[in-house]
Amino acid sequence: MEDSSVSISPALEREIRILHNLVGNAVVDNKYIVLGVGSMQLLKAAVASLACDRRTADVVAAVPYFPAYREQSLLFETAHFTWAGDANVYAQEHLGMNSSTIEFVNSPNNPDGMVRHAVLNGCDAFTIYDYAYYWPHFTAITEAADQDVMLFTLSKLTGHAGSRLGWAIVKNYTLYERLLTYLQLSIITVSHETQLRATQLLRVINGAYSGQLHAEQMIPLGLPPAYYASKGLSFHYGYVVLRDRWMKLNQILNQSKRFGVQHLEPAYCKFFKEVTGPSPAYAWVYCKQENDEDCQAVLQQAGIISRGGKKFDSSTRFTRLSLLKRVSTFENLINHLSFLVSEEINFILLK
Amino acid sequence: MEDSSVSISPALEREIRILHNLVGNAVVDNKYIVLGVGSMQLLKAAVASLACDRRTADVVAAVPYFPAYREQSLLFETAHFTWAGDANVYAQEHLGMNSSTIEFVNSPNNPDGMVRHAVLNGCDAFTIYDYAYYWPHFTAITEAADQDVMLFTLSKLTGHAGSRLGWAIVKNYTLYERLLTYLQLSIITVSHETQLRATQLLRVINGAYSGQLHAEQMIPLGLPPAYYASKGLSFHYGYVVLRDRWMKLNQILNQSKRFGVQHLEPAYCKFFKEVTGPSPAYAWVYCKQENDEDCQAVLQQAGIISRGGKKFDSSTRFTRLSLLKRVSTFENLINHLSFLVSEEINFILLK
Repeated sequence: MEDSSVSISPALEREIRILHNLVGNAVVDNKYIVLGVGSMQLLKAAVASLACDRRTADVVAAVPYFPAYREQSLLFETAHFTWAGDANVYAQEHLGMNSSTIEFVNSPNNPDGMVRHAVLNGCDAFTIYDYAYYWPHFTAITEAADQDVMLFTLSKLTGHAGSRLGWAIVKNYTLYERLLTYLQLSIITVSHETQLRATQLLRVINGAYSGQLHAEQMIPLGLPPAYYASKGLSFHYGYVVLRDRWMKLNQILNQSKRFGVQHLEPAYCKFFKEVTGPSPAYAWVYCKQENDEDCQAVLQQAGIISRGGKKFDSSTRFTRLSLLKRVSTFENLINHLSFLVSEEINFILLK
Repeated sequence: MEDSSVSISPALEREIRILHNLVGNAVVDNKYIVLGVGSMQLLKAAVASLACDRRTADVVAAVPYFPAYREQSLLFETAHFTWAGDANVYAQEHLGMNSSTIEFVNSPNNPDGMVRHAVLNGCDAFTIYDYAYYWPHFTAITEAADQDVMLFTLSKLTGHAGSRLGWAIVKNYTLYERLLTYLQLSIITVSHETQLRATQLLRVINGAYSGQLHAEQMIPLGLPPAYYASKGLSFHYGYVVLRDRWMKLNQILNQSKRFGVQHLEPAYCKFFKEVTGPSPAYAWVYCKQENDEDCQAVLQQAGIISRGGKKFDSSTRFTRLSLLKRVSTFENLINHLSFLVSEEINFILLK
């Protein structure tokens, strides 16, 4: 047990590197890769590794943010780091002060799908880039990210959340070693069954796209999902499904005066070699009417499950709908939402 | 991702409960089971969960101890707990003081195979029982352990260390909830591939022994390992292999005046229904001669890899040999050790 070390299967590491070079979403050459039990575990490992032997670092993230940034920082707090809340508020309150900070930047962001950059900078401001959703099915790949610490997860790439595989791409050798020590003393290594399965999954995707990589033109995006699925073109498949869901959702909400949803811009995707999107993982819905203060409760009453804005340190006027569920669950959502909006329209017509 | 919760597959939980009832090494009825990424992760989760909202707890373990107890406590230290070294030294220095402590008790103990009990007691003394080796192939099952916090791992049960599966058996509901929160915010859940594989492994063992459970007489221990292997009787198999290794090792070391090894007693095993052992996982070897201060280095020079006593917070006169390696590795060890001891005997004869 104690003689082994945190190990990444060479086959898996190779597939991860091939994939990033293929998609063009992250620079991996001359960088280190560390595995974790989902990116979840790597978030806390990265904070602890960046914070060690510095003055107490303030951990922040711009609202609205993925709740685990706050929850982890509070639960696992040490003498080296402490949770300090919203990055934008923090920046105003610490203007001109040379604080020691660690900022989580999730881009595109959960819950609102926005492309994000760090709010804080300065000589002692570190950033952890959570790129869980920086894949062509969720957002246009506009450049290969080249940050110091970048996190990815199988969960949002292929949907295998239960396999629990995340990876960090790290520039700095000292930080890499700290991450390895942290992980070795936490879990020794990531499940070999998981590594084996992930290797096979990535191999299938890489294999399907290997012919496309140097082609002048990618296979276009207008075809039926089943066609892409049959060829293993999983980014094409994911994109057309999510794009379709987003449009269906917007079609309904555009008729409503009661509900709004975030505005996202299409952009040129270097991977697909065409303008794509929006095709986000989540809809960040808000309630416009004065009485609808708790938007989650409003949807709940209409039989729709969502995640209230408070969880994301935002207003209760916001709530998050997941667009990543099974086909039947999504259809159920659309039916309930249509009914809710049609009630609103009927009510206006009756007045 | 954030909508799921730390989950144990009901099928796996059932097999774990059946196994403990079958072996009789731990009381599981009316207790909670929590999974972790090996018992490694549960060690730190248990310390953090026991330490939360109490005055700073001193974490201790009696020398010689598994190095991760110290290494984890140092690396993951928070305001709630701090590493305080050898439990026996601590007990003397804090005699009559009502300290807040968390003690790791590993029984049988890595590295020396000794059956252990808590050194510290008192109203604010908590104990984490690491029962990684409390299985009939390593030690006689003398009673069903019924402690507040008991840790087990697949690694030392079936040898599937790379699958990374550990479990905690917990009496107290509040502690159970804290462990769940700790694990959910660390890893969300244990790899589903791992849980699936472990379920199947335990199902095979439980199935093989189910007929034996209520039989008047267990299948006896004197048969060849291949026989047990063919029937899936993995405890029988493990026991006869390890018992044989221990005897071979002792046969060699008994001829030596230079090297000694720990003394272990046989005992009546309620599982096998006969007197068994010793059959430990490790040999805790020591060097007797004045010049051989660094016993690991002495063995190293003879081509034998071991783990020096210092790692276990013990003297460099001690070193640990693993008896859990593959057949060819063990035979290699025995050959090197025979040669080393024969040199010593030849030297004495020449004098």
